[in-house]
Amino acid sequence: MNSGYYAVIFTSTTIDNLSDYQEWSEKMMLLAAKSPGFISVETARSAIGITVSYWEDLDSISNFKNLVDHKYAQRKGREQWYKQYRVRVCRVERDYSFSS
Amino acid sequence: MNSGYYAVIFTSTTIDNLSDYQEWSEKMMLLAAKSPGFISVETARSAIGITVSYWEDLDSISNFKNLVDHKYAQRKGREQWYKQYRVRVCRVERDYSFSS
Repeated sequence: MNSGYYAVIFTSTTIDNLSDYQEWSEKMMLLAAKSPGFISVETARSAIGITVSYWEDLDSISNFKNLVDHKYAQRKGREQWYKQYRVRVCRVERDYSFSS
Repeated sequence: MNSGYYAVIFTSTTIDNLSDYQEWSEKMMLLAAKSPGFISVETARSAIGITVSYWEDLDSISNFKNLVDHKYAQRKGREQWYKQYRVRVCRVERDYSFSS
């Protein structure tokens, strides 16, 4: 059990006709992975999409949020892809796992 | 923007042959929804499953974790359904949203 790191929970619903969404989504995952303080990212999509990225501290999250390419993707997201989204920045307090 | 509530991030990979998983998954969502301090739940599944439930406080999370039916489901999960899972209990510190 480790804790004291941060999670950004990004939940979204998108429009049906997503032109360059997949390309940008992958681009942002790669950009996150190269950013300071990045730990990991997990993503799944059914009726809604949930992407959770994990970071060492709040500064790293803030830095990623403000990268030029990410800013551009955020604007495209609001103008083109997303009906709605929600971002929750959280402090991980307990962390445990199971493996069979 | 509101904050100060809690999120439980449950990520999992399952075996291929899931007999009564869907039934139990829905049962647990209903059980959570009836539990004190429950706020909401969001779920999506691709290569991995991500379910995030939101709660008013840590006691509510602890109470839900220890309900008899939930304990039974946790055991079935470890014995039957999950290759692995990870649970992160988090405090939501910032929360913002967009709606088109």
